[in-house]
Amino acid sequence: RRYEVGVIAGDGIGPEVAEAAIPLIEKAAVAAGAEIAWTRYPWGCDYYHEHGRMMPADALDRLAPLDAIFFGAVGRPDVPDHVSVWELILPIRQAFSQYVNLRPMRLLPGVSTPLAGRGAADLDMVCVRENGEGEYSGLGARYDQGTPEESAEQIGRFTRRGIERVVRYAFSLAASRPRRLLASATKSNALQHSMVLWDEVVREVAADFPEVEWRPYHVDALAARMVTHPDTLDVIVASNLFGDILTDLGAAITGSLGLAPGANLNPDRTHPSMFEPIHGSAPDIAGRGVANPIGAIQAGALMLRELGLPSAHDALQNAVEQVLTEGTVRTPDLGGVAGTSEMAEAVAEAM
Amino acid sequence: RRYEVGVIAGDGIGPEVAEAAIPLIEKAAVAAGAEIAWTRYPWGCDYYHEHGRMMPADALDRLAPLDAIFFGAVGRPDVPDHVSVWELILPIRQAFSQYVNLRPMRLLPGVSTPLAGRGAADLDMVCVRENGEGEYSGLGARYDQGTPEESAEQIGRFTRRGIERVVRYAFSLAASRPRRLLASATKSNALQHSMVLWDEVVREVAADFPEVEWRPYHVDALAARMVTHPDTLDVIVASNLFGDILTDLGAAITGSLGLAPGANLNPDRTHPSMFEPIHGSAPDIAGRGVANPIGAIQAGALMLRELGLPSAHDALQNAVEQVLTEGTVRTPDLGGVAGTSEMAEAVAEAM
Ligand SMILES: CC(C)[C@H](C(=O)O)[C@@H](O)C(=O)O
Ligand SMILES: CC(C)[C@H](C(=O)O)[C@@H](O)C(=O)O
Repeated sequence: RRYEVGVIAGDGIGPEVAEAAIPLIEKAAVAAGAEIAWTRYPWGCDYYHEHGRMMPADALDRLAPLDAIFFGAVGRPDVPDHVSVWELILPIRQAFSQYVNLRPMRLLPGVSTPLAGRGAADLDMVCVRENGEGEYSGLGARYDQGTPEESAEQIGRFTRRGIERVVRYAFSLAASRPRRLLASATKSNALQHSMVLWDEVVREVAADFPEVEWRPYHVDALAARMVTHPDTLDVIVASNLFGDILTDLGAAITGSLGLAPGANLNPDRTHPSMFEPIHGSAPDIAGRGVANPIGAIQAGALMLRELGLPSAHDALQNAVEQVLTEGTVRTPDLGGVAGTSEMAEAVAEAM
Repeated sequence: RRYEVGVIAGDGIGPEVAEAAIPLIEKAAVAAGAEIAWTRYPWGCDYYHEHGRMMPADALDRLAPLDAIFFGAVGRPDVPDHVSVWELILPIRQAFSQYVNLRPMRLLPGVSTPLAGRGAADLDMVCVRENGEGEYSGLGARYDQGTPEESAEQIGRFTRRGIERVVRYAFSLAASRPRRLLASATKSNALQHSMVLWDEVVREVAADFPEVEWRPYHVDALAARMVTHPDTLDVIVASNLFGDILTDLGAAITGSLGLAPGANLNPDRTHPSMFEPIHGSAPDIAGRGVANPIGAIQAGALMLRELGLPSAHDALQNAVEQVLTEGTVRTPDLGGVAGTSEMAEAVAEAM
């Protein structure tokens, strides 16, 4: 089997971690009897300075026929970050109906958590983040700009359909996991339009999954719970913004933002899905070769699984976990001194 | 001096903790030569069931002449929580221009944090939460209700004036603290209307405070940072929703939601300010006499300080810290077996 994968390595440490991960993903695919044809798209902030836009006008048309997209990171201090993300990653997520942003939050063996007395058995969560609408609808405006009366409105737009499809995905996922727990992040007390609809749809979908034990938590309480009682959490379903916040928190308590992968999934397969480390472009460490490639490598493993190569996924994931367990090669975010390529080489050897 | 303080004990554990705290606040005030006249308003979910509303139509008029309001908690499963909060606590915060929600997040002596290897020196933050507008503007609507096309819009409305006043307060506060650091919570990459305005105003106000070292963090990264590097944070300024989330997280990492106080301040003193523990009504433990009263007691201490009784504040606060340091009397949330009244009595004795 042959897969066409587009690479948007992007900005900052994006290219460093993406290029470190690609040979490993390839190796795993080949060992599983598959072949990957990589096409690199040099889009991002450099492209922006040359062309006045983050990607070309026909970018989505060029990406549409691909089997998957592998993404690095976006953003740099010399481009306003609402421009960079609204012209690159967010249009891809939204135009390609990647309405599920799947983000495992699991403490891997050999990795230490900042939470006292917690181990791998306490930290095994996954967030299903709504990825296509909600707070990230982009709607809104600035008024009376430059005057003392200036104001801005930011509109979160939630549809029943949009909520239902992601919540259904989350319940199915919860039903497939041993503990069968689902926590829904809400804030329906204060956000009386959007989150009340969210809660209603969650309750309706829940009726189809009697085997799943679920409950809503206000997002503030849920953030606190992730720190105080992470062992009581399994699958979390959250709106776009809440999922964004909770998954960074989840990455922090499971060891490092540098480890965490994310999959922007189009479960209906009408368009390619996109896989990325959840960390950003980290301009402060870009170019120094010290970024942790494990987030990107694990994102690659998720991609292999979604492409229908579970054994390739397992081979790559097991290699990652072996290297972390041994703990001899560690990037600075994990308290070590290894560089990006050393870390990636260790994973390659473990394979 | 004589102060008129209104008490809205509210629902769930609200009355339990408020009534436990009141005698201590009174004692501290009297020792400082002041007198407090308490007026109790029986508003909340019981009132709602009797009268069809959470508080009477003239409630704000009755509260307006007071010197301060002491609040317990609001909400109960038998009243939709957007109704209970939008008819009780949020109208008071907003109508009385309590635009600063001041929430200390400090690890007190004798209290243990869920963060490994962290102590009191690492956890000394305070959040200045915007409390009058933003995501809590209440604006928005439901469309096509009951149809498959159903949707909801939730509008966050931010004004330059509204942002500026709270940001200015936060910078002043940062300037008065030893470390003079300020972190601004943003999400201007995704929320390109509201948070871009927020960032602009922060940058402008910052120019008036050259002595404060400040920087913006995306709220997701900031939540992670609170867990991984809390020692690098001092004052945090955040929008209404972001402040809500970050302060629950802050309470969790500083030991317990049951300890944390909040002050809804009208810095212009055109209306009374309101003081409350930041925890909710906790229906699961209500009526059992086990709620931690320290959040309410510390809220009382903040009230005494704002009323102009710093020595009363100090006496009450020192007593709280002495009891926590001794650690012999602890409520279940702190790992002990003491009840609400035992805990309050221990503080009374320490005074
Ligand atoms: C870059 C940014 C728009 C993005 C988001 O907020 O979704 C990032 O934080 C993430 O979590 O993938
Ligand atoms: C009760 C609720 C509306 C409130 C809020 O979100 O502000 C609470 O969570 C708080 O933090 O005071």
